[in-house]
Amino acid sequence: MATWQDNVRRVAPYVPGEQPQRPVIKLNTNENPYPPSPAAAAAMREFNSDLSRKYPDPSATELVTAIADVYGVDKDQVFVGVGSDDVLGMSFLTFFNGDKPILFPDVTYSFYDVWAELYRIPYRMIPLDENFRIRPEDYAVENGGIVIANPNAPTSIALPRDEIRRILDANRDVTVIVDEAYVDFGGESCLPLLAEYDNLLVVQTYSKSRSMAGSRIGFAIGSKEMIKALSDIKFAYNSYTMDHVTIRAGAASMRDVDYWKKMVAKVVATREKYLPKLQELGFTVLPTSTNFYFASHGKVPADEIFEELKKRDIFVRHWKKPRIDNWLRITVGTDEEMDALITALKEIIR
Amino acid sequence: MATWQDNVRRVAPYVPGEQPQRPVIKLNTNENPYPPSPAAAAAMREFNSDLSRKYPDPSATELVTAIADVYGVDKDQVFVGVGSDDVLGMSFLTFFNGDKPILFPDVTYSFYDVWAELYRIPYRMIPLDENFRIRPEDYAVENGGIVIANPNAPTSIALPRDEIRRILDANRDVTVIVDEAYVDFGGESCLPLLAEYDNLLVVQTYSKSRSMAGSRIGFAIGSKEMIKALSDIKFAYNSYTMDHVTIRAGAASMRDVDYWKKMVAKVVATREKYLPKLQELGFTVLPTSTNFYFASHGKVPADEIFEELKKRDIFVRHWKKPRIDNWLRITVGTDEEMDALITALKEIIR
Repeated sequence: MATWQDNVRRVAPYVPGEQPQRPVIKLNTNENPYPPSPAAAAAMREFNSDLSRKYPDPSATELVTAIADVYGVDKDQVFVGVGSDDVLGMSFLTFFNGDKPILFPDVTYSFYDVWAELYRIPYRMIPLDENFRIRPEDYAVENGGIVIANPNAPTSIALPRDEIRRILDANRDVTVIVDEAYVDFGGESCLPLLAEYDNLLVVQTYSKSRSMAGSRIGFAIGSKEMIKALSDIKFAYNSYTMDHVTIRAGAASMRDVDYWKKMVAKVVATREKYLPKLQELGFTVLPTSTNFYFASHGKVPADEIFEELKKRDIFVRHWKKPRIDNWLRITVGTDEEMDALITALKEIIR
Repeated sequence: MATWQDNVRRVAPYVPGEQPQRPVIKLNTNENPYPPSPAAAAAMREFNSDLSRKYPDPSATELVTAIADVYGVDKDQVFVGVGSDDVLGMSFLTFFNGDKPILFPDVTYSFYDVWAELYRIPYRMIPLDENFRIRPEDYAVENGGIVIANPNAPTSIALPRDEIRRILDANRDVTVIVDEAYVDFGGESCLPLLAEYDNLLVVQTYSKSRSMAGSRIGFAIGSKEMIKALSDIKFAYNSYTMDHVTIRAGAASMRDVDYWKKMVAKVVATREKYLPKLQELGFTVLPTSTNFYFASHGKVPADEIFEELKKRDIFVRHWKKPRIDNWLRITVGTDEEMDALITALKEIIR
């Protein structure tokens, strides 16, 4: 017998990192250990909630203008969304509407194949090399579009801008999305390439370097034609996606460039400080340009370390997936959190 | 020559009502003239912005629990999204995945056909009768799903619950979505039918009766199986869609039932007070169960009234669409705003 369930779209949903509600050392979702810009905090605190009765500006002009000013691009080149997941999901829907498979690495942000499945976009995963690196030459094949996370996650490895350029040169006729969620911690942004490639879309987020994961802000910068196509789809889905407070706080945060640079520098300093300590404990750590380590231990299996850390209220990330099931993704926290991590690891690994 | 633009998904985007930034009398997007609950305002004011560095609760448990408590349903029966547009768009994607056309009225919320186009869902628009009413018997034909706005927009007419029941009885094997954006102003909610129909999804919003259009909160209540299907799709799209502040403010607003009822009563009182004044000016006004009027003037064309009001900084809504191009949708504002409207209309119509 037919039921309403016959028409339901089924997907294997993405499983986000655990969000324990009790206080723990949370190194599992690459959040920033420092608070958002005081300017963003002030914008939130001072927001007149009476305004909430009205719809927000559907174009989020205040936020778009701040991003355009800080990155030196035109306002027509900026698109904002509810986290970079929203921006990326909308970009998949907008730009990958052909019959040829889109390409992305086999080990990368685990939402890419989920979106492809959701929107029935054909896709092919290109294996990273044996050192977990992206080989640009692998992307010089026929395809319907390309998505590269740079730095890549969860590997933490960055590709130099010139290598991305090689991918772009081999793919002038499809959309190339570069997901720069972690770029501020040490990658080379592809923004300077926008002048040369009208098929390049650079996506960034407030969730990592700007300490605003809880506000849900992501953005894309690209050619005016790309941003127009993306906006048309966005307005076909939901005109008003970003609330008043978030627009204001996001604009204030973006303009506070000094604070942002200082917080990024603090995270990077901690990362460099604790890298040798992990290595001393016997971890192989991939060269990181992000706010996390991707690490594997020579002797103790990753799932065991993961469970033992959890018992001690320290959360890191582990995937039971081919190639990476003996690796852990560990967010860079404060020095105090990293000290606690190292102490716990010493107990576990001894 | 092939270009990236060949793969772009093209849609005719929804055009939202104008959002003029200068102070005007804004009766064009059915916003509530009164501020949100003081409890919601306090939740926003007192939010500790340091928390923004962390991802929000992906399940928005605090908000879901408040909605479940107030409506006397199980938490597993509640889904929340970034405005009811997000909830509805996600519902189209989730439940309308078959080959048969989904059905909705020819005159209704103008996003329905936009979403159907976006997701390539076959659809058929069923004409309202000559009095702009939905005839339940028209929906007793083979279909892939049904969407009914009740009260309908922009007609403002409500269908009694028993008429919705007739539609449900004729459609046990497909998803029936009832969009109750305006129900609090005088419609009969279908929530009591949920116990009988596991294929019914009721969608509501904070944007109208709860004065929180600017916060972007919508929700759906349905069977656990439906909510599970919807959540799976949501987690495949974007795990964290609702920010911390919005979750808290939304929960506080939901629990402040007294304030909500008082504000709804104020809007309804104004609606009833000004209805005869519009009729005296020569308007035909459809029987409204919403926070707006759908009105047509016997002598002066709608587009002329629209333009003349705009010159006087009074914004109402007009569509250049078949059947309704001589009608205006006018939001119920404060008594002061309605006085200004009536004064302006007297000048225009004289």
